[in-house]
Amino acid sequence: MRAVVLRDGELRVEEVPRPEPGPGQVLAKVRACGICGSDLHAALYLPQLIEASRQSGGEWDERALTEGIVMGHEFVAEVAAAGPGAEGWAPGTRVTSMPVLIDPSAPRGVRAIGYTAGLPGAYSEYVLLSAPLLLPVPEGLSDEAAALTEPCAVGLHAVRQSGLQRGERVLIMGAGPIGLMTLLWAKHEGAGTVVVSEPSAARREMASRLGADIVVDPRTEELRGLVDEERGTPCTLVFECVGIEGTLQQAMDLAPRGGRVVVAGACMTEDRIRPLVGISKQLTLRFVLGYTPEEFAETLQALGAGVIDPTPMITRRIGLDELTATFRALADPAEGKVIVVPHG
Amino acid sequence: MRAVVLRDGELRVEEVPRPEPGPGQVLAKVRACGICGSDLHAALYLPQLIEASRQSGGEWDERALTEGIVMGHEFVAEVAAAGPGAEGWAPGTRVTSMPVLIDPSAPRGVRAIGYTAGLPGAYSEYVLLSAPLLLPVPEGLSDEAAALTEPCAVGLHAVRQSGLQRGERVLIMGAGPIGLMTLLWAKHEGAGTVVVSEPSAARREMASRLGADIVVDPRTEELRGLVDEERGTPCTLVFECVGIEGTLQQAMDLAPRGGRVVVAGACMTEDRIRPLVGISKQLTLRFVLGYTPEEFAETLQALGAGVIDPTPMITRRIGLDELTATFRALADPAEGKVIVVPHG
Repeated sequence: MRAVVLRDGELRVEEVPRPEPGPGQVLAKVRACGICGSDLHAALYLPQLIEASRQSGGEWDERALTEGIVMGHEFVAEVAAAGPGAEGWAPGTRVTSMPVLIDPSAPRGVRAIGYTAGLPGAYSEYVLLSAPLLLPVPEGLSDEAAALTEPCAVGLHAVRQSGLQRGERVLIMGAGPIGLMTLLWAKHEGAGTVVVSEPSAARREMASRLGADIVVDPRTEELRGLVDEERGTPCTLVFECVGIEGTLQQAMDLAPRGGRVVVAGACMTEDRIRPLVGISKQLTLRFVLGYTPEEFAETLQALGAGVIDPTPMITRRIGLDELTATFRALADPAEGKVIVVPHG
Repeated sequence: MRAVVLRDGELRVEEVPRPEPGPGQVLAKVRACGICGSDLHAALYLPQLIEASRQSGGEWDERALTEGIVMGHEFVAEVAAAGPGAEGWAPGTRVTSMPVLIDPSAPRGVRAIGYTAGLPGAYSEYVLLSAPLLLPVPEGLSDEAAALTEPCAVGLHAVRQSGLQRGERVLIMGAGPIGLMTLLWAKHEGAGTVVVSEPSAARREMASRLGADIVVDPRTEELRGLVDEERGTPCTLVFECVGIEGTLQQAMDLAPRGGRVVVAGACMTEDRIRPLVGISKQLTLRFVLGYTPEEFAETLQALGAGVIDPTPMITRRIGLDELTATFRALADPAEGKVIVVPHG
């Protein structure tokens, strides 16, 4: 089958073996897959990511570096063939799943789909999925919307971990996909005024469309909206959804005394902070990653019910052949979500 | 009166005006005052501290730099003279207080005793105190022990902010006074095994005497004790009580997945961290400072009842004339708490 392989920092369309579904597995034909910021990061920083994972007790197999990987973990697919014990999943059923494959021989019992050598992700024609993790896609939900389940769950997790109070004034730094997903959930979970800070005019416009109350360009009007002009209440909760050098300290500078900073943006390099600022203000920094299985399922349900609609952030649909060029283009952080359609 | 003045980074014994108690104030004769790590920091980094305070919305009067200050905020004193409205406080009564003076003209309604130009702290013969903040020292509690109320309250605040769970395994990095106060309260509040990491053998010995279950030298045996050998439970709570470059990242490296790091050590300079470690482990960093009035009063009560006894950490008593040399000596981080006795 055709797949986009990342090897030695290069992405190339190659022919790779189509997996066979084993016991409890299904082979599924990819209908759509979102491009994730983590994939853009991995294309540039795979060795560092693997090292950080291992330093924190992770078990990332280093063969990902030598053998290459097929990324793509924000997918919706349709069942093509069922392995033994998974026959209940009829061919043609639209499904999604958390991007892990159950594997009792793995140290944590699962392997990451999209980051593991020998386990192709959804930048390919087919993926192997574990039947117990499959979730049927609600009828009427488009493939594109369903493919947004995974990044949307990341936003839900960030908001749930933030301790958001009803009516609380919130600052979101960065209106990339994760910042926008966080915006959607923050509004849904009862945030008061949400201020979104983002240098790109296109992304600011998208944030407004998705419900931001105030959008600001941090380069020219950093402080507008940070404090309610009438009541003087500040943004006590700051979501750092940029993740480049210096933005964590910016978040600490913008947070008020006693404020909370949720760190969702993953700065790939060492970063500098001034701890005295944290201490003077008694800040809490909450680093977040991923979501729980319950949050993933809840997100798909919310998308199906139309309670949350992130589809306005989709800016392009591409085929596998356009992936390499698109990865390069996405280094310019003005775009929204790009959806890959392998069979398009 | 005689006082030790900090001006241009130098400490000198000088003659300064003895304050007059105004309405609601008492003049109190200093019986004992602890040397605080913050004072050692201020002697070296006062301009940076003032800048950090102002950046985080503080109101530190910069005259502290030009006019000099008399530090000393961990005091016990006896009432010498009462101003109008404070006559209820009889001369000779032993008192302590949070180190602030009520002043409605100040931006926050109080001024910091020990860091404000024109408001001498307790490295002097007398201090001015606000009658509404005075707490009588329980009978039978020594001056030295009462002088430890303030730093001991810092330890209580750190533990209360940490969300310590009963039986939780805890790592305390650094056995300076704040690390040791944190140790005392962590044990009192129901911590399970407490591991203290400290390079100085003398301080490790002190930690053992004060209740540490395991003491380790981070230079030679970094990992011993971090995980329970039988049950495999890690130290899910790490108190960073060192506050020099690199120790925050060390704390993040030592914390397990989902762990909490309480940052009590105040690194005066910019510091480097690897945010990816925080994200991979979904860590929470909680920066803490000071204590609440309730925590201060609770600490004095606990000291009076003998529930908490930090006096074994006192290593020396000195007079005002020895303060300058002692500050230099305390740069060597092997000592415990030093108590200044101005009238000794």
